[in-house]
This record gives sequence, C-alpha cells and structure tokens, in this order.
Amino acid sequence: MRNLKVILSYDGAEFSGWQVQPDAVTVQGTLASAIGRITAEKVLPQGSGRTDAGVHALAQVMTFVTESSVPTENFAKALNHILPAAVRVLEVTEAPADFHARHSARAKTYRYRIYRESICPPFLARYVWHYPYQLDVAAMARAAGLVVGEHDYTSFAAVDAEKEREETPGSKVRTIFSSAWESVSEELVYTVRGSGFLHHMVRNLVGTFILVGRGTLQVGDITRILEARSRSAAGATAPANGLYLVGVEY
Amino acid sequence: MRNLKVILSYDGAEFSGWQVQPDAVTVQGTLASAIGRITAEKVLPQGSGRTDAGVHALAQVMTFVTESSVPTENFAKALNHILPAAVRVLEVTEAPADFHARHSARAKTYRYRIYRESICPPFLARYVWHYPYQLDVAAMARAAGLVVGEHDYTSFAAVDAEKEREETPGSKVRTIFSSAWESVSEELVYTVRGSGFLHHMVRNLVGTFILVGRGTLQVGDITRILEARSRSAAGATAPANGLYLVGVEY
Repeated sequence: MRNLKVILSYDGAEFSGWQVQPDAVTVQGTLASAIGRITAEKVLPQGSGRTDAGVHALAQVMTFVTESSVPTENFAKALNHILPAAVRVLEVTEAPADFHARHSARAKTYRYRIYRESICPPFLARYVWHYPYQLDVAAMARAAGLVVGEHDYTSFAAVDAEKEREETPGSKVRTIFSSAWESVSEELVYTVRGSGFLHHMVRNLVGTFILVGRGTLQVGDITRILEARSRSAAGATAPANGLYLVGVEY
Repeated sequence: MRNLKVILSYDGAEFSGWQVQPDAVTVQGTLASAIGRITAEKVLPQGSGRTDAGVHALAQVMTFVTESSVPTENFAKALNHILPAAVRVLEVTEAPADFHARHSARAKTYRYRIYRESICPPFLARYVWHYPYQLDVAAMARAAGLVVGEHDYTSFAAVDAEKEREETPGSKVRTIFSSAWESVSEELVYTVRGSGFLHHMVRNLVGTFILVGRGTLQVGDITRILEARSRSAAGATAPANGLYLVGVEY
C-alpha cells in the first residue's frame, strides 16, 4: 500500500470547483474517476483544500492511497493521458503513510490577477478580474501590509447566508506571512502566503483592498475591519476567476 | 447611412467558427445579434474571411452598414457591453462606402503556436497545439522559406471529402510574402503573411512542416508537394486551436 502525493494544475473555469458533487464536473471527481481507470480502485483523493468554481491552481496538492501495482513513476503520464487538458498532473511521488495533503500543510500561497486596461483580451477573460477603473496602487500596497501577522480573520471569512453564521467552524485565527501587490505589465497582482485561509478569505481581502484603491476606505480602515470581526465590515468578494492557488508547503 | 469597419479579437474555443449557423454559437451570429440590439436593425456583418471552430483572432476585420443614429465612437463600448467576454471590439471607424472587409483585403497575417514541453499548462490547452516530440527546427525554418512567392497552393487547400473536389472554387494561386518559424520560450511559432489563404491552408502548411521537422519529409520535398497540386501530397491538417488570425491589411 502506498500513500501517493500528487501535484497538479487546473483551469478552474472548466470545473464546478474542487469538491466532488453529483451531476457536476469537479476537479476531485474527475481525478477520482481517472485514478479508478488506472488502479481499478475506488478512491477519493484528498486535496490540500477546496477551491471554488472558477478558481485556478498552479500547484494544488492531493494524496490518495493505492494498493495497485502501477509504479509510482508511471502515474503522472497515465493520468495525463486520461484527464482532460484542463487538469494536468505535474508530479507523483510516494509520501510517508501519515502524510495528508490538508492536515500536513504548513503554508499556502495564493495569487490574484487584476487586468487594468480598458479592453480585456478575450484570451484572458477566464483568468483575471477585469477592473479598468482608477486605483491608488500605493494605498493598496500599504493596506496589504496591515493584514500580515497572526489575526482573527472573521471579517474576511465567508458567511453562510441562509444560516447567518460562519461557514468555517472553529477558530478564525490564522497567520499571514506575506501580503503584497505588484504591477506586472497591464496587471495588478496580489500575492499572499499564510498558514491557512478561511473560505473566500483571499477574495474578500482583494475586494476590500479594491475599496482602499478606490478611496472608499482609507488604509487605516483595514485595522478597524480586522478588529470588527464582522464580515459586513469588509468589502465584497472579488470574482473567482482571478484567483490562483500557487502552491502548498509542508 | 454609414459603412462601419470593426476590428475585433476573439477566443475561437468559445465559438463554432465565424460563419452564422442555425443552432450554433458563432462569432458572426453573436455580433449580428449584438449590433441588432444597439441599432434595432437586422444586419449580417461581413468578415475579412471565415475562421473555423477553435481558430482565434487577434484582429479580425468586419464591415456592416447602418442607418442608426448611434455615433461611430460609441459603438465599441456599446458592443463590448453586450458581447460575451470571449469577443472584444477593439475599434470601430467609418469607412468609405465601397470598402468591404473581404474584397478590399490586400494581405493577411496568421500565426500558429506549438507548445513543446512535455506537459502543457491547462491555461494554454485551448490556445496552442501541444506537440512535445523532437523536431528539427532548422529544417522546418528552411521548409517554411520554400513556400514564399506566387504559387498554386492546391496541395494545401482543403478538399471536400464527400464531393471529392476542392472546397474553394476558382484559382488556387496566391502569394505568400513571408513565412517563418521562430522559437519563443517553450513555443515554436509560425508566422505567415500572404495575399490570401485557401481554406485550411495555414493548418495544412503547419502539418506539412511538422513532417519535415520529424524527418518524414525532407526540406526539398516542399517544392515537389507544391508542384504536385494534390492535397494528398501534403501533411495532415494541424489542429485549429493553435491558429490565430493576426491581422488584415487594406
């Protein structure tokens, strides 16, 4: 029996998110089915975390246990042969039995791409948030720095609208190690690395930084929003299609 | 009455080609419907030429006649507001009454992108031909040079399989002004500029150059294939998704 660690990349626009669902094409479901064709085993690979519909991954990590005799080094090629082009396996290695893609994760990095020119090329529409309005980039950069550290990120956590409570049970305290905006040709790119992220947290941070960029909020409001521990204090959730899971550290 | 010239870009993966068809989402049909919503007129815009399903355009040109009072400078924004993100209007200008996107064209440029690394990123799958096999790029470059000039390109023209005859009636003589391969990071990119192109001509040229790259054909075979004036002398049609209409000159 082997515990296999898989690094994979996918185009979130082609999937109804990571998590397996009946009657929807999901990344997890697509991978489970491809693994099943190779191993003749019924497995549900475990990701480092869920990604929502439209969210992309440059290097998502997942694990699954197999008793098949297929050599580890043959899995990547065999999976890529079966999988649709919208998901690619980059690497398959054997991991210790107690390694788990989600529980063993120590840090994750996300990136968010905003396209700023007035007309967004059709080839980028699925991969960026098109935001052609004026932004105070320097203010956004200062605001991004204020969320670094160990904080209770309740204000940036998704709220289940029907049940009027937080979607992620338990502590909302996480640590952000770095948080920065940079201009890359026609794009404004936000990169954040942290111990873990609450549901919608990166998209809610981006939506709030945009309010700072527009002048609706001041830089210092970020500290007040963090302290409020209330979702309604922060900005709207930025669209899914600009977001990328860049990588997971163990 | 104004004759409007429109420059537009589209992601061919989202459309069943340029030409309007019943029960299919086409670029021409999508544009006709968007123009109709703005002008309340029924028009069928005329493109510089058709593009097949999956083929992209960086700067396609089309014309349409309107009697509406909408100012020319407002059309681009109004159209982009209605159109799906997969097609973008870059520019709308008034043209002389006798200007026609197809008949007035003097030259066209196409580009073909081949991705060479063993794993194609999911974000590129719709936009390149993934060909991770060894190629003699120098031989392909020499072969590309041999099609420059005025030639009968029958060997590279699509044949209607059912009717066993050429799809484009009339002369197959065209002039290619330039034809070259270049390496651009992980890609091999073919750019060809000519007076006009037969249906499938660029994709059939690429499919034939690939045979030279693999060593199945020799560089000098290109001249023999041109002289054969037979579709069966040349290589297979390269996939649509690597092809881009780069621009049209008038």
